Amino acid sequence: MTARIGPTLLICTMVSISILLASSVASGDEGMWTFDNPPRALLKERHGFEPSQEWLDHLRLASVRIGDGASGSFVSPDGLVLTNHHVGRGQLQKVSTPEKDYVKDGFHARKREEELKCPDIELNVLISMEDVTARVQGVVKPGMTEEDALDARNAEKAKIEKESLAGTGLRSDVIALYHGGEYWLYRYKKYTDVRLVFAPEMQIAFYGGDPDNFTYPRYDLDITVFRVYENGVPIQSPAFLRWNANGAADGELVFVSGHPGSTDRLLTVKQLEFERDYTYPVRLKDWRRQLDAVKRFATQGPEQARRASAQLYSLSNRIKSRDGEHAGLLDPRLMAQKMKEETELRKLIAGHEQWQSDYGDAWDAVAAAEEKAAEKYSAYYFRRIGGYRLPAIALNIVRYVVEVKKPDGARLKEFYDSRLDSLRFKMFSPAPVYLDFEEALAADSLAQSLEALGADDPFVKAALAGRAPAEVAHEVIGGTGLADPAVRQRLVKGGEKAVRASEDPLIRFALRVDPILREMNTWQEQNVESALTSAAEKIGKARFAVGGRTIYPDATSTLRLSPGVVKGFPMNGTKAPSKTTLFGLYDRAASFDYRPPFDLPEGWLNGRDQLDLSTPMNFVCTSDIIGGNSGSPVVNTAGEIVGVVFDGNIESLPGRFIFDETANRCVSVHTAAIIESLRKIYGAGDLAEEMEGRR
Amino acid sequence: MTARIGPTLLICTMVSISILLASSVASGDEGMWTFDNPPRALLKERHGFEPSQEWLDHLRLASVRIGDGASGSFVSPDGLVLTNHHVGRGQLQKVSTPEKDYVKDGFHARKREEELKCPDIELNVLISMEDVTARVQGVVKPGMTEEDALDARNAEKAKIEKESLAGTGLRSDVIALYHGGEYWLYRYKKYTDVRLVFAPEMQIAFYGGDPDNFTYPRYDLDITVFRVYENGVPIQSPAFLRWNANGAADGELVFVSGHPGSTDRLLTVKQLEFERDYTYPVRLKDWRRQLDAVKRFATQGPEQARRASAQLYSLSNRIKSRDGEHAGLLDPRLMAQKMKEETELRKLIAGHEQWQSDYGDAWDAVAAAEEKAAEKYSAYYFRRIGGYRLPAIALNIVRYVVEVKKPDGARLKEFYDSRLDSLRFKMFSPAPVYLDFEEALAADSLAQSLEALGADDPFVKAALAGRAPAEVAHEVIGGTGLADPAVRQRLVKGGEKAVRASEDPLIRFALRVDPILREMNTWQEQNVESALTSAAEKIGKARFAVGGRTIYPDATSTLRLSPGVVKGFPMNGTKAPSKTTLFGLYDRAASFDYRPPFDLPEGWLNGRDQLDLSTPMNFVCTSDIIGGNSGSPVVNTAGEIVGVVFDGNIESLPGRFIFDETANRCVSVHTAAIIESLRKIYGAGDLAEEMEGRR
Repeated sequence: MTARIGPTLLICTMVSISILLASSVASGDEGMWTFDNPPRALLKERHGFEPSQEWLDHLRLASVRIGDGASGSFVSPDGLVLTNHHVGRGQLQKVSTPEKDYVKDGFHARKREEELKCPDIELNVLISMEDVTARVQGVVKPGMTEEDALDARNAEKAKIEKESLAGTGLRSDVIALYHGGEYWLYRYKKYTDVRLVFAPEMQIAFYGGDPDNFTYPRYDLDITVFRVYENGVPIQSPAFLRWNANGAADGELVFVSGHPGSTDRLLTVKQLEFERDYTYPVRLKDWRRQLDAVKRFATQGPEQARRASAQLYSLSNRIKSRDGEHAGLLDPRLMAQKMKEETELRKLIAGHEQWQSDYGDAWDAVAAAEEKAAEKYSAYYFRRIGGYRLPAIALNIVRYVVEVKKPDGARLKEFYDSRLDSLRFKMFSPAPVYLDFEEALAADSLAQSLEALGADDPFVKAALAGRAPAEVAHEVIGGTGLADPAVRQRLVKGGEKAVRASEDPLIRFALRVDPILREMNTWQEQNVESALTSAAEKIGKARFAVGGRTIYPDATSTLRLSPGVVKGFPMNGTKAPSKTTLFGLYDRAASFDYRPPFDLPEGWLNGRDQLDLSTPMNFVCTSDIIGGNSGSPVVNTAGEIVGVVFDGNIESLPGRFIFDETANRCVSVHTAAIIESLRKIYGAGDLAEEMEGRR
Repeated sequence: MTARIGPTLLICTMVSISILLASSVASGDEGMWTFDNPPRALLKERHGFEPSQEWLDHLRLASVRIGDGASGSFVSPDGLVLTNHHVGRGQLQKVSTPEKDYVKDGFHARKREEELKCPDIELNVLISMEDVTARVQGVVKPGMTEEDALDARNAEKAKIEKESLAGTGLRSDVIALYHGGEYWLYRYKKYTDVRLVFAPEMQIAFYGGDPDNFTYPRYDLDITVFRVYENGVPIQSPAFLRWNANGAADGELVFVSGHPGSTDRLLTVKQLEFERDYTYPVRLKDWRRQLDAVKRFATQGPEQARRASAQLYSLSNRIKSRDGEHAGLLDPRLMAQKMKEETELRKLIAGHEQWQSDYGDAWDAVAAAEEKAAEKYSAYYFRRIGGYRLPAIALNIVRYVVEVKKPDGARLKEFYDSRLDSLRFKMFSPAPVYLDFEEALAADSLAQSLEALGADDPFVKAALAGRAPAEVAHEVIGGTGLADPAVRQRLVKGGEKAVRASEDPLIRFALRVDPILREMNTWQEQNVESALTSAAEKIGKARFAVGGRTIYPDATSTLRLSPGVVKGFPMNGTKAPSKTTLFGLYDRAASFDYRPPFDLPEGWLNGRDQLDLSTPMNFVCTSDIIGGNSGSPVVNTAGEIVGVVFDGNIESLPGRFIFDETANRCVSVHTAAIIESLRKIYGAGDLAEEMEGRR
């Protein structure tokens, strides 16, 4: 990849210093913008488009955050929500049984009554945004230690959230933008009665499997359709996106509205080096080993494969994307570009006495904190509750009963009052638990901790007490009653006393390791996080001082608007087109002689001649996205939905750190393919009609 | 690209020194082997295949060299020859007229009488190979200067060729293998009555145009079918390849039999650096400028576009491939691998007293010669006859009449007795000449020489005599009679006297520049070529001393056998399949909204529903090929033809210097697509039947 445009270049342009680079800035559509600060000037100058406040509000209210890390949109007045198959996959797995595998076979509710309630998915709609920077930053007083400052900020954030929840009844999150340069209160309308309406077979949703994942040209029908209910009936709302089955033309301006999870574009060079040399190598190695464990489990039989499928996908997906990100960090050109940008910014700061005095030491402070972090990174990484879902639930129960007794701001962040509802929703989820799978992953995680830390590490001692990892895993998972949500509820209701008295081996395990994990948290807060938070806040302010709000904040799982253009890109010596067609799907299948992962579901094999094979299937645009944008709607300037984001291409992976419009592309399912297949493959004409607004 | 396997590694394995690298050798199918020395051991060990002498002989006799730089094969007992469209394109253009453009529209002779005679294409079939190393190397006596040694070798080569021609009537070429480590006499049966039988439209033959050129996945029907005549009737011969319309399966062992033009895998690091720093930068810049000139001409109108089309393709093709090669040289990993191999070889030589004394100084001699060459490279490059076809014809006439009077070995190489027949065939070609196009390119070439050399350069003075390049080009091309082959023949018949007396301005131009070009040749022979030839011969012998004939020689436009396996490869984050299908052709067309160069000929648009779209169209194998292999047959172990080579993928371009089987692939037209389209698109069922051996 060629590292061409970085955020700080925008700054430089604004202060008219980096004229040299101004031209590359003008050509790009980089940016994940908050809805309060869309890039109006850029949109007008480059595309002649001026979004009205109504346009922005409508799109915001039709956009949905799904769970903690995904996106979707309302596509009918009766609460239909369109997102990705890989977003809905966890729920599909949870409602499946050994007899009926909805992940593999798909799902289609032909009538409202057949719509299937999801066990534990939460949807959020962003209702309002309020700048609370002054309040949060205001509690930090001169002379405070960085640790005290961190505590003070956290307490104030918890207070704001609690007040807002009490006053509005809405989920209320205080989020840091620009690494603490700003703090905002985001209020969400929350939905938890979400029902499955339609999902295709995994094989067509994830066509091409791991090889084709994060690549393009692509041929995936990566969709799930939910319907949102309230009080037992579908919600009725005008905030939905009208359907445009023609899609967007090559060269057309489009917008992605979704919830990018995290980017690291505003990190300092030292932070990037830390990522490159510590975070990525340690994690990638760990995930690869986890994946091996999952594969070993899955190969035991078809039912084991079904139970492991979501985690198999999740790990493979993570490894491929993080590998691509790591490759970006290892590319000397990327690092050189980052160094150049940082040097320019620091020079600007140094050239202004007040700025230098206020912010000038921040980069060195970051470097010192990262050096501190490096000392413990690998060791602390392997002190962890580990396993699949159940050990984390046990730890949450153990902590919940203690934390809720403390004042809000003094708690671990996940236990702030405003967040307890969502936490309980997940903690008490009725989704099925597979103890054999849980045990296999717990054993593997404990074995890794032992291997990495040695038998004398306090965490290992607490976890294993000298026994073999497999033995401990068998005891704590095999003997636990926590698979039953009612048991979890009884424990939480019983409070700290009941939990301490519990003889459930998994609870006892969590009680043993909790103090050591807390000690580690405290060390990290005191030695790393407090210093990084303070330094990052300074650098955020430094950027504002130089460039104002002409830059966008790093992604934070909050709603963002990413403008872009439907556009192919140079690929492997030739051009990738801006769209693919159903012809290409059948080409890829036949080219690989229908061997997995390039086989086709039976319905697609039999239905081929009914399809118009020139129907567009997937398309790419230059919109700036990252993990968390999965399921985001792609809309045109009329606010109509033309596609559903489901991936980035392989060239986009270093986009976590730097955006290069040359080949960084967002990959989406085309609306035409959705309608064509609903009608001709799935006999779901009614659903197609509802989406198209004909019913 | 990852530079993984180099020829010298094979050497190291043989002498059991480089055990470390032996594993990578065993996994590869690298090599363009001479038919006298196929890699029998490798084929047996790796693929369990032992080609019989009959198998080898039959394949050799069914293989055809076309012109100076392409390949083909006999595919029927009645002289049908199958090659690429881009090999036949020059002839298609030459038989076209402003009224009938066979390049664009294709050609199909429905009866024998409609088969169209080509103006100037020569086909060669390799009849025998004889090792003449002892004779050629034997004439070099101790104490000879390198220049005298070069002259002596050349004289001996000319003598051998002449004797052979006289004795057998066959075209006889002495060729240097292993850079002079061996010399061989190759005898060819020559055919010059070659007729066009079938060619598809350029748009489907070169589908995807320059963007898709040298890439894969690919969808090109890049074929031309000729028929070879002798004495006015089609030749009858059992040496043809039987047709296999099923093609080769994924993983199947196949062989490419063809005439790779040149590789540079045995060059020293110094030579590679010279290529990287001088040859490629100067030539690429020059070709880009030439391409601009051709494009300017072509945009004047449709007839101009037709006249320029072959050259437009040829230059674009060359620029793309050489760009990829240059990128390989610029990749530090490739150079590091080459350095490593060279260091290992030199260490082996140095460790053996006799070897060191015989060959040890060769690398330094190469370095010295390349330093000498560097002094003059750019200047001498732009002393050239330039233009398109006519100036070169004029220069050949001017030289011919002088050279033929000298003793054979004292002539410029192109005028050795044994080669005169082929030279005259081209010199007197009746192919149409377009003076406007000739003038445009001559003007551009002269302008470049002036710009690069300055007005005071002897060549520029002789060529322009102080006048403007366009003026000179207009005078010499506008006033020449050489477009008429009869005029050329009269001049040659008149001999040196007639030529010297000629007032044809292009002849006069050639007479003016010839002495300067000869002077330059002499300087290069004396200062560079003689030293390089001597040093390369030593290095060739050094390689033999270490490894015997377990390596293959660099390509020399002579017949080679390249084994390989039908196999996809890792591409852009995913996998490229080993074959493509007709589905993919229609996908690519629809994906680009049928915009050029992704549009489809009308017959293909209208005929779509008649086709079985799952028919394989192109496929890839690991066979080691390069330019000159175009049109080569791909055969299976039964000796049946399963495809026609037409390209390498983008990953194969650094293959000029180093072979890396990871992603280096040979791209071929699948036999199934040929039959399917002949029958269903072209109404050429009879031809399909003949190929399939049903008639």
